Amino acid sequence: MTDQTPTLADLAEVLAQTAFLKPYGFTVEACAPGSCTLRVPFDPALERPGGIVSGMTLMGAADVAMWLAIMTRRGTREHWVTSDMKTAFLRSARQEDVLCTASVLKLGHRSAYGTAECRGATSGLLAHHVLTYAKVDPGRTG
Amino acid sequence: MTDQTPTLADLAEVLAQTAFLKPYGFTVEACAPGSCTLRVPFDPALERPGGIVSGMTLMGAADVAMWLAIMTRRGTREHWVTSDMKTAFLRSARQEDVLCTASVLKLGHRSAYGTAECRGATSGLLAHHVLTYAKVDPGRTG
Amino acid sequence: MTDQTPTLADLAEVLAQTAFLKPYGFTVEACAPGSCTLRVPFDPALERPGGIVSGMTLMGAADVAMWLAIMTRRGTREHWVTSDMKTAFLRSARQEDVLCTASVLKLGHRSAYGTAECRGATSGLLAHHVLTYAKVDPGRTG
Amino acid sequence: MTDQTPTLADLAEVLAQTAFLKPYGFTVEACAPGSCTLRVPFDPALERPGGIVSGMTLMGAADVAMWLAIMTRRGTREHWVTSDMKTAFLRSARQEDVLCTASVLKLGHRSAYGTAECRGATSGLLAHHVLTYAKVDPGRTG
Repeated sequence: MTDQTPTLADLAEVLAQTAFLKPYGFTVEACAPGSCTLRVPFDPALERPGGIVSGMTLMGAADVAMWLAIMTRRGTREHWVTSDMKTAFLRSARQEDVLCTASVLKLGHRSAYGTAECRGATSGLLAHHVLTYAKVDPGRTG
Repeated sequence: MTDQTPTLADLAEVLAQTAFLKPYGFTVEACAPGSCTLRVPFDPALERPGGIVSGMTLMGAADVAMWLAIMTRRGTREHWVTSDMKTAFLRSARQEDVLCTASVLKLGHRSAYGTAECRGATSGLLAHHVLTYAKVDPGRTG
Repeated sequence: MTDQTPTLADLAEVLAQTAFLKPYGFTVEACAPGSCTLRVPFDPALERPGGIVSGMTLMGAADVAMWLAIMTRRGTREHWVTSDMKTAFLRSARQEDVLCTASVLKLGHRSAYGTAECRGATSGLLAHHVLTYAKVDPGRTG
Repeated sequence: MTDQTPTLADLAEVLAQTAFLKPYGFTVEACAPGSCTLRVPFDPALERPGGIVSGMTLMGAADVAMWLAIMTRRGTREHWVTSDMKTAFLRSARQEDVLCTASVLKLGHRSAYGTAECRGATSGLLAHHVLTYAKVDPGRTG
């Protein structure tokens, strides 16, 4: 990992090393200073009853996209954790890939705030999220 | 499924029939009119880096606990979906079971609002959630 | 009032007729389909201890800006009320006018969702808001 | 002000010294370690069109009740400010006093989290709030 501005390949590597996210199949689609876009490939295994992409999948994508968006500004070495997250579910995604873009609106030394949007390739805006992250000091583990 | 007040066994059956939740291993611990408690068994596969239970697992538990809590008042036949959910992550859970209790604070014909708390067997309050659910009319699919 | 697309003057008239908002001195600065910007003139009477603009003033501005933003799409005759509102306070405003812009992200027949930002002339982004409005049916009063 | 556990009279004094809250007429009804109840007397001047108590009044009551609830645990000398607040408006209050009770769920050295409920004397639960407060370090002003 690095203190320098990470590339898309660096963020993809972070994602690949995070075992508990493997089942979701997220990939890094794009990044820029302060933002990151993930692709959530369509997978019947992530469907809710009725054939819609589960809300947990959308929340997970938003959470991870913001985590990586913070790294675009702070590097990959610091330890940031979600402290607060709100999701509005606006439409259902059906049998389509979802793109989730997170944007940092304010970045402080100890906290970060931003928004994320999940969009379906054909359905448009599926969910809107606001997230607060907190930086965990070295030496603390929580 | 039934229009009558579901028993704990009825709610357990709903959970068992929901395929995408299988990986989480949630079980119904208790229910009463307007509330439901789930157990989230400790599972290393659900850990985040650092050995803590992932936020997605806690959010998933809260979402499902509220879904079942609404059923305790409205039966298992209606179709309710999450429209809004906010989570405050207060502490990290470590290598312990988590209990998540959801309580309905207001139940209308078309929307329901309530809170959920995730507690670790030894850590105390881990996360606090507020959720809004909307009833999907028969004939609609979203 | 009118079912047609309201002009800035129409929205200013709605604001002028809303007695309980008078103390805040909000004025309509701009509008477009799906968005509305209010000006909150600096007023020492709205200060919190320490000389900062009170959070209630920022929340009030966001709430009203969204109300008017919905009118830009739905006219001024329907009755929409706030059903949910979340505010992140990011910086303090000091002795300066505040501009608050609300944008509708999703507008349905019965509910609307959007964001609002309060910005200080010199301080930048002060607060970020997400709001859900519900349409009250004719004949109901709540 | 004092570092010791404040009495109801101490909290009433804090309220009386906060000029910008005067128009609301809030009074301290009760307090205990970690909680505080405010009374919002009915006042036609705080009504929204249609004769209902304005949402801003309810949000203001919740914000202040939490501020005082934190003081019951931390004394009246520290400087705590609202960093995040979410309100669900559940029912309309009509021509009645409102009681707002805030409860601290987690209190850390730098942040506090809790809930508040606004109840009408006859209407029941009007609004449910979740709030995060942050401690401002001495020497900083924002």
